[in-house]
Amino acid sequence: MKVGRRETFNSAHRLYKEGWSDAKNLEVFGKCSNPNYHGHNYVMETWVEGPVNPDTGYVIDLKILKQIIRTEVTDKFDHRNLNLDIPEFEGINPTAENIAKVAWELMSKKIPAHLKLTIRLWETENNIVEYSGN
Amino acid sequence: MKVGRRETFNSAHRLYKEGWSDAKNLEVFGKCSNPNYHGHNYVMETWVEGPVNPDTGYVIDLKILKQIIRTEVTDKFDHRNLNLDIPEFEGINPTAENIAKVAWELMSKKIPAHLKLTIRLWETENNIVEYSGN
Amino acid sequence: MKVGRRETFNSAHRLYKEGWSDAKNLEVFGKCSNPNYHGHNYVMETWVEGPVNPDTGYVIDLKILKQIIRTEVTDKFDHRNLNLDIPEFEGINPTAENIAKVAWELMSKKIPAHLKLTIRLWETENNIVEYSGN
Amino acid sequence: MKVGRRETFNSAHRLYKEGWSDAKNLEVFGKCSNPNYHGHNYVMETWVEGPVNPDTGYVIDLKILKQIIRTEVTDKFDHRNLNLDIPEFEGINPTAENIAKVAWELMSKKIPAHLKLTIRLWETENNIVEYSGN
Amino acid sequence: MKVGRRETFNSAHRLYKEGWSDAKNLEVFGKCSNPNYHGHNYVMETWVEGPVNPDTGYVIDLKILKQIIRTEVTDKFDHRNLNLDIPEFEGINPTAENIAKVAWELMSKKIPAHLKLTIRLWETENNIVEYSGN
Amino acid sequence: MKVGRRETFNSAHRLYKEGWSDAKNLEVFGKCSNPNYHGHNYVMETWVEGPVNPDTGYVIDLKILKQIIRTEVTDKFDHRNLNLDIPEFEGINPTAENIAKVAWELMSKKIPAHLKLTIRLWETENNIVEYSGN
Repeated sequence: MKVGRRETFNSAHRLYKEGWSDAKNLEVFGKCSNPNYHGHNYVMETWVEGPVNPDTGYVIDLKILKQIIRTEVTDKFDHRNLNLDIPEFEGINPTAENIAKVAWELMSKKIPAHLKLTIRLWETENNIVEYSGN
Repeated sequence: MKVGRRETFNSAHRLYKEGWSDAKNLEVFGKCSNPNYHGHNYVMETWVEGPVNPDTGYVIDLKILKQIIRTEVTDKFDHRNLNLDIPEFEGINPTAENIAKVAWELMSKKIPAHLKLTIRLWETENNIVEYSGN
Repeated sequence: MKVGRRETFNSAHRLYKEGWSDAKNLEVFGKCSNPNYHGHNYVMETWVEGPVNPDTGYVIDLKILKQIIRTEVTDKFDHRNLNLDIPEFEGINPTAENIAKVAWELMSKKIPAHLKLTIRLWETENNIVEYSGN
Repeated sequence: MKVGRRETFNSAHRLYKEGWSDAKNLEVFGKCSNPNYHGHNYVMETWVEGPVNPDTGYVIDLKILKQIIRTEVTDKFDHRNLNLDIPEFEGINPTAENIAKVAWELMSKKIPAHLKLTIRLWETENNIVEYSGN
Repeated sequence: MKVGRRETFNSAHRLYKEGWSDAKNLEVFGKCSNPNYHGHNYVMETWVEGPVNPDTGYVIDLKILKQIIRTEVTDKFDHRNLNLDIPEFEGINPTAENIAKVAWELMSKKIPAHLKLTIRLWETENNIVEYSGN
Repeated sequence: MKVGRRETFNSAHRLYKEGWSDAKNLEVFGKCSNPNYHGHNYVMETWVEGPVNPDTGYVIDLKILKQIIRTEVTDKFDHRNLNLDIPEFEGINPTAENIAKVAWELMSKKIPAHLKLTIRLWETENNIVEYSGN
């Protein structure tokens, strides 16, 4: 059984590879590399897979999962600049892929070990990534 | 090839474990345990996976799948109280996980055996479960 | 300028006119009159119309509007039975129209008098009502 | 007859009133005043109202309306920082209200005079504004 | 009080003005004039405005409104070619504007005279029209 | 890591098995076999799975994936009649299953070989198929 919880955060970012020139960053990342940043309403589904607890009928209490998501990810990322304000992106280009990976790593420490964690992240309604830890 | 069909039902329920005191139920299930019930617009995707029939170009005729979904699940659950009106939830706490499991069991008897059945159920736009029979 | 804020609540209800027999209620309201209730994920947009404050650039601070919506409506209605748990529906049939009217009356006392208030309420994705106080 | 066209743009911004101290800006605008910016996927519906051309069956050719929207607004705002990159927001706090107003003013010059223009703008799925020029 | 009901229909059409050459039709309507047709999932909201019946709490019973929509419009248009299969479009170019107008005219005969009728029609998620009878 | 890109196309089609009589086609495919065609707004998610490039932080540049989707599929299918205008459906019944299969085959030649390709296609908001090449 899998259960998922949808949460959102609104952040600024730019795509930028340290060590590359501005021209090279612009060539590879195009308008996503605008030096003054742009931003997104990120939509993140956090999925956990595991057995149903026969007492509660839950895989995990979604109130608890929501609290983990907020404490570990959305309270940190929301209304922030991912490049400047979030230490976890130090030296990491905040592509949707890397945001999902960072969110997965932050939450996997807090999710009970018998549950498999997957992150699905919409950067826009057209661009989506999914990460399960490998 | 997988094909999915989306149907909805609108039901009342409360989360309640028989044998627990009201205080214990309230402690574990919070406002979801309100004795006078609350309710949801449930959205259910029913997925079947199998080969494409070379004559029809179908895995399964979605008109037939829709009929199975309605006869087995949505006509029974819609505009009903899951705790009081549905015999299948006798002694079963109607969490999203258990609703998906009951729906899967009701439909799996009617789906051709060579097709793999998966249920994806939205209790709200933020709370989702998925069940494939194990 | 109009600004709108979307909030949700999940409630049980039944359509039932006091003074009518059960048979008459069933005839008029059909399955919506199920005595054990059913329920919905209500989606409510609260709109206010008025001038933009030149200092803030706001018609109304949406943080304040959100607080009014929650205090006056969604905290009261969410995870409740509209017929049994909400005094405002005493003797009032909780159709979508009447829910919008009750919400409008609860909030209009708290919205500054120079702002025009409109409620748009989705009972399901297919059934919608809109009320502006007359 | 009204016709509407939906387009999107993804921008960074912060809410900030020039002449107020940082403390005052933080007090009024909260996390929306984060100095390093945050961002949104803005969704903008542009509506025009007028008679149907009997030859074409159009109020306005939506290909033309789309071109006006892109040239005047979304190509300018998309993947930009509204505070830093867009001259139209010089001295104007980029609240949703003011973004709708600036977009209205940019487009109203290009829309035929017999058509009434309305902008509906979603900053998030929960925060919406609508502006018709007064 | 306004109430709206959302229904859908899936139709083929082409934009084509009788009396114009194929070249002129292609010039004005572009790819929408493809001689072999294309198609859409049309989403139609039917709104009626009027007083709330104090007995039922309804402006109009949505079961009745749904039946009018289906009998007058969606059962006729669904899985049809609007240019070839629907007599109401004889000599009328099936733009979104004209589809909304035809639907309004078909339904206005069946809606009680004290209720104001409005049609809102999505041709795609980006193209919308609204018609209230003038 | 998986990344997905959502694109749309609007096409006419009919379900029709060559070699079957019209009566047999009507019996099996019902209103979907209307000889004058009907149509849909198809929504297609194209997913690729593979490792993240450590330089770019991308599995694949979505600008490149978007270009492949448009060149191979949506520019060909959009505003076309799938039965009459698209050579790839010669002798193939354009069910959602077969459309997903044709799109997969067109794109798989252009996607780097180390990436796994999956197509998810919505024919309507209720009918969905998913295909991964086997």
